[in-house]
Amino acid sequence: MGRTVDVTELVLRDGHQSLLATRMALEDMVPICEDIDAAGYWSVECWGGATYDSCIRFLNEDPWERLREFRRLMPNSRLQMLLRGQNLLGYRHYEDAVVDRFVEKSAENGMDVFRVFDALNDVRNIKRAMEAVRRTGKHAQGTICYTVSPLHSVADFVDMAEQLCEMGAESICIKDMAALLKPQPAYDIVKGIKERCGADTRVHVHVHSTTGVTLVSLMKAIEAGADVVDTSISSLSLGPGHNPTESLVEMLEGTGYKTRLDKDRLLRIKDHFATVRPKYAAFESNIVGVETEIFDSQIPGGMISNMESQLRQQDAGDRLREVYAEVPRVRQDAGYPPLVTPSSQIVGTQAVFNVLMGKYKVMTGEFADLMLGYYGATLGERDPNVIARAIEHAKKEPITCRPADTLTSEWDNLRSQAIALDGCNGTDEDVLTYAMFPQVAPGFFGTRAEGPKNVGASPVATTGSASAASNGTGKQPVSSPVVYDIAIGEKTHKVTVTPA
Amino acid sequence: MGRTVDVTELVLRDGHQSLLATRMALEDMVPICEDIDAAGYWSVECWGGATYDSCIRFLNEDPWERLREFRRLMPNSRLQMLLRGQNLLGYRHYEDAVVDRFVEKSAENGMDVFRVFDALNDVRNIKRAMEAVRRTGKHAQGTICYTVSPLHSVADFVDMAEQLCEMGAESICIKDMAALLKPQPAYDIVKGIKERCGADTRVHVHVHSTTGVTLVSLMKAIEAGADVVDTSISSLSLGPGHNPTESLVEMLEGTGYKTRLDKDRLLRIKDHFATVRPKYAAFESNIVGVETEIFDSQIPGGMISNMESQLRQQDAGDRLREVYAEVPRVRQDAGYPPLVTPSSQIVGTQAVFNVLMGKYKVMTGEFADLMLGYYGATLGERDPNVIARAIEHAKKEPITCRPADTLTSEWDNLRSQAIALDGCNGTDEDVLTYAMFPQVAPGFFGTRAEGPKNVGASPVATTGSASAASNGTGKQPVSSPVVYDIAIGEKTHKVTVTPA
Repeated sequence: MGRTVDVTELVLRDGHQSLLATRMALEDMVPICEDIDAAGYWSVECWGGATYDSCIRFLNEDPWERLREFRRLMPNSRLQMLLRGQNLLGYRHYEDAVVDRFVEKSAENGMDVFRVFDALNDVRNIKRAMEAVRRTGKHAQGTICYTVSPLHSVADFVDMAEQLCEMGAESICIKDMAALLKPQPAYDIVKGIKERCGADTRVHVHVHSTTGVTLVSLMKAIEAGADVVDTSISSLSLGPGHNPTESLVEMLEGTGYKTRLDKDRLLRIKDHFATVRPKYAAFESNIVGVETEIFDSQIPGGMISNMESQLRQQDAGDRLREVYAEVPRVRQDAGYPPLVTPSSQIVGTQAVFNVLMGKYKVMTGEFADLMLGYYGATLGERDPNVIARAIEHAKKEPITCRPADTLTSEWDNLRSQAIALDGCNGTDEDVLTYAMFPQVAPGFFGTRAEGPKNVGASPVATTGSASAASNGTGKQPVSSPVVYDIAIGEKTHKVTVTPA
Repeated sequence: MGRTVDVTELVLRDGHQSLLATRMALEDMVPICEDIDAAGYWSVECWGGATYDSCIRFLNEDPWERLREFRRLMPNSRLQMLLRGQNLLGYRHYEDAVVDRFVEKSAENGMDVFRVFDALNDVRNIKRAMEAVRRTGKHAQGTICYTVSPLHSVADFVDMAEQLCEMGAESICIKDMAALLKPQPAYDIVKGIKERCGADTRVHVHVHSTTGVTLVSLMKAIEAGADVVDTSISSLSLGPGHNPTESLVEMLEGTGYKTRLDKDRLLRIKDHFATVRPKYAAFESNIVGVETEIFDSQIPGGMISNMESQLRQQDAGDRLREVYAEVPRVRQDAGYPPLVTPSSQIVGTQAVFNVLMGKYKVMTGEFADLMLGYYGATLGERDPNVIARAIEHAKKEPITCRPADTLTSEWDNLRSQAIALDGCNGTDEDVLTYAMFPQVAPGFFGTRAEGPKNVGASPVATTGSASAASNGTGKQPVSSPVVYDIAIGEKTHKVTVTPA
């Protein structure tokens, strides 16, 4: 006993991505970076996922500048990012040279740990990015998307871990984006990986807290030998976010396990984000408390709100229960992909179409691609009849190769398109921004010179709620403009009221 | 393995006591009692604690009628109550005959399980109530208030469990009202009790969720052999409340432990309270998310708000940190009582006085009583110098006997005072109401005939009005959550407006 468990702090990336729609501006993170840097974390997740997209779409921030700033402000920390394998941070597969370039540039700008995953758990979509990371000498983490299906077993996840290790992963991450990982499977998978791949195989566990059980899962993962667990500081935790860092520390007291974390620093980090959070009240997730129904439906929360809004647009809001029942059938037809971006949207949208227009009467291009292998391989077999429909619909043949093998060289083309844009600075970083977000990058290049835009309510506007948060009473006189939570039935809406 | 773990549902008592200031009206519970009755709980906590007080003070409800209604609506369930030992549900010690009468009447009106505790963990204050319960043939549960101090050890709690068993307790409850029970001590104490008192000693574990770690503590308690754990349905859980019932059920999947709970019933119970909760938005606790600082300060959340308001009344809001530092010193002087009603208020108020006026320059009557043994014995020794001051202040001598032994027969006197009141119906139940709440009972007797008053926002009460029911905390109406009925076309929506 007496083992030290390390911690990855999520607040600068997945914490605000999950709770504040990724809207936090760099300037609201800068003042606390020194404390984060000194708190004793194994790594600080601070880039990737949706942050890059949000920077250029909403915040007029150069994501590369954000990365360099983190590097400068946290010289003692491992900076960590989430990378969607061959998709990088975009929504399609990229040709290998683009993947290589992105990884090189990320490393060069300061990234240390690359957590690489694929939505379908197809290791072929992870391989190139991992090799690129290894060439830079940085930490390549192979990632397993945890999911639940009639097919998926502990052995399948352990098999995947073995493949990732053989591929040169320096560590394995079990990534539970929907809070479905219960204590016993958490224990069994970590134990299984340690037994199969060796006791010194570093295992990281990433869980969300939506269902309320995953702090127990972290405890069990630790008992099974997990080396690093992911948490977010308490003032930006829980709900669809993560377990609170401080609770993890306290939970371990007396167990023989301990962390390296400095509680005084944690308190300062907590206080900082408790002050920042109310500024972003308009972006708060509607999910509060816990939601255990997803254990049965296996439909993550974010997917439900998507489907609801699609149904409402079709005046069919009353057919959600039918869609709930359809999702597992569509998922089965598609070979049981994990439900995570983008597979969750693809499966969910097709389920909505099936309910509204008849089974596979209409098929989205993305769903056809999923059925035809253009996103990669799935654990289960796909339904041959649905494949036939997909061929008909998409007018193309199924593939079994690695999807990126169908792509031709594209860097030079992307480069010439990018540098033709007003405001493009001609760097590889800008070309990558364009490559990943061709719709958004032109606008961003054009406005970049105006500097970052903080979409949180300004200090003047939030005097009331910000100071209320700090004294914990929430009972300050209201000064306009004010953001209210308006609950109608079970749904909560953010409404900003300004004097006319 | 394969052991069944039983569950006590808290939503009808401690759930809404912790989250909605005990304001829930019986009529908002009635429609769901059938589902609760059939869900498979070991017991349903539904009475005692602050509910009796709240019924007569705020809801114009006869608490005895509430109890009889629960009995009628849940014929298959064990009804459970929380009883403050010799204090019953009031705030002073009662003479033994009053204790006996209260327990008899509670049993007669339908109570099955009596969870008996004492704020100082002085078993002499628990004994009489336990004996009374045993005479009725109902379930007598002996309770340990869990606390943390430089003195308290696992062995002390196990010792107390042994004393309670010798006293005839049919089960032992570990009651963690401040969410301080971490996983390892949870395991050690349960294990210790099972070893000392026998493996068939029934152990119940009651935890709050304030610090975010206690679902893990329940897991560890179960691993150590706990028989029953307390939870509250998810839609009235977390924060200063309890762990969600559904999360407990899901947590155990695959572990070999299981509950008897029916998930379909749980879903209906959840949906019911999700609908009811917004009605009581004006009474919601200000504490949200998790709060781990109390592990260090050992000052429960409710105590902090008390001390804050006392300081503010004295224009000394800036001296809270000094009071934080003073609380542990005062607690040490008083022999390390657990901090729970009423000891938390007594210690907190004295700490405020010490900071504002000098150390023990002024002493409250209650603190003097605590120092002189009039609340019972504490685990630690009390400071002789402070005892001397208390003698001086209170003009009475310390006692070492059981406090109730100093009382003389009082039932006949209470009875004649009660029946003299307008509206008193002359029953023993009414005499007990008067005995426990002599200030409040007269008003209640006078208005009882008007029938229950639902202080949740009702459509009629709030149409077009910006004032939610006053919550008695002096909050400005403008900054409290307000519930409106908003008619859009022919549909009326209940809209809760809260400063974000």
